[in-house]
Amino acid sequence: MTQDELKKMVGDLAATYVKDGMVVGLGTGSTVKFMVDALGRRVAKEGLKIVGVPTSDRTAAQGRKLGIPIKAVDEVDQIDLTIDGADQIDADFQGIKGGGAAHLFEKIVAINSKRNMWIVDESKMAPKLGSFPLPLEVIPYGSQQLFKRLAAKGLHPVFREQAGQRVLTDSKNYVIDLHLGQIDDAFRLAQYLNQQVGIVEHGLFLNVVNTVIVGYADGPKVLQAPERPNYRDLKA
Amino acid sequence: MTQDELKKMVGDLAATYVKDGMVVGLGTGSTVKFMVDALGRRVAKEGLKIVGVPTSDRTAAQGRKLGIPIKAVDEVDQIDLTIDGADQIDADFQGIKGGGAAHLFEKIVAINSKRNMWIVDESKMAPKLGSFPLPLEVIPYGSQQLFKRLAAKGLHPVFREQAGQRVLTDSKNYVIDLHLGQIDDAFRLAQYLNQQVGIVEHGLFLNVVNTVIVGYADGPKVLQAPERPNYRDLKA
Repeated sequence: MTQDELKKMVGDLAATYVKDGMVVGLGTGSTVKFMVDALGRRVAKEGLKIVGVPTSDRTAAQGRKLGIPIKAVDEVDQIDLTIDGADQIDADFQGIKGGGAAHLFEKIVAINSKRNMWIVDESKMAPKLGSFPLPLEVIPYGSQQLFKRLAAKGLHPVFREQAGQRVLTDSKNYVIDLHLGQIDDAFRLAQYLNQQVGIVEHGLFLNVVNTVIVGYADGPKVLQAPERPNYRDLKA
Repeated sequence: MTQDELKKMVGDLAATYVKDGMVVGLGTGSTVKFMVDALGRRVAKEGLKIVGVPTSDRTAAQGRKLGIPIKAVDEVDQIDLTIDGADQIDADFQGIKGGGAAHLFEKIVAINSKRNMWIVDESKMAPKLGSFPLPLEVIPYGSQQLFKRLAAKGLHPVFREQAGQRVLTDSKNYVIDLHLGQIDDAFRLAQYLNQQVGIVEHGLFLNVVNTVIVGYADGPKVLQAPERPNYRDLKA
């Protein structure tokens, strides 16, 4: 089985979780692309009625082309199920996202979703988070001072660049990646990052995902996370 | 004494705290304007050597005109003293800022300052914070959903508008004001707001100010806050 065949199997399986009448959050990435294709086929063949809320212009365009009605997150009451990728998932079903510099909008869609599903290949699964650098979206103004503070705290910050230029997010902010190696207490780190002035959003997605579909060499495997309090209600 | 004479007295007094060689954060507002004028006179008459780090284009223009060298927050090592206004200050020297929709940049300058001084008239002093609505700078994407959550939590959110249009900050974000009446536990509220996805920064300035100069009807009064841990190190 090629990598693409495996991704298609995972995407097809994920699409079967979408029910008639659902508002569906549509993530971004190569596996998600197969899932959106599968949804498009269900819309065309079964007459499946859904509304898609995309996390990127790319997915919005793909959805529209396939005949999936597309709405923005503020145009729906809430999202029933969001299916997205992830950059790293640990044994406790906590995740890192932001490798595509879109974790702010992805998190906004995720926390407005009743259920979240991540579809990944097995390389994304890890006992602990941190070997994938943790992305931060940061306000450009004062980011040099923020960088110094993060460095002084031993968090190994690196400004993300592309072709020698600092990467800009859709909100015109910079991305700083923290090269942490291993994160021992993701909740404590999230709390620290949440209260830093100038960090718009970090890439830790904690207590967010409900279901993970992993593409292993011998086929997709569905993993259920334990039921947990919603991220946005933690310590409120 | 007119209101302007009183503001000038407060501004002049604040300017005496600036010493030769200092990097000085320059806030924004009518009283701060008198303080920057006073600094300009000291630069011209005493040959005072300072660098100004402004929190707004308006103050930057005023400083340049007066011959004060102006640098951005990322162009200096750190700021020795920032002198700014405030919208409300409680008996415990905690503050609310953001009435001018600039609290994000003001907070970035403040937390990069060794010392902070606020200069206000007596109407800004209150036993408890909250009768001044608490400003939030929020990401437009998903802000309607965020608004609903804040309303459901009883925080009385109102989108800030001007001439029928939503106000945009310098970072092209919206402002939501929380009409709270009274804030019983500002630290708890700050922690809640810090962890909400889509809130870039709130207007609570906690453990930030060191010195407050208040313009009372009979003249300025200098108040010293107790020494406290720096905001950015709290619960780190």
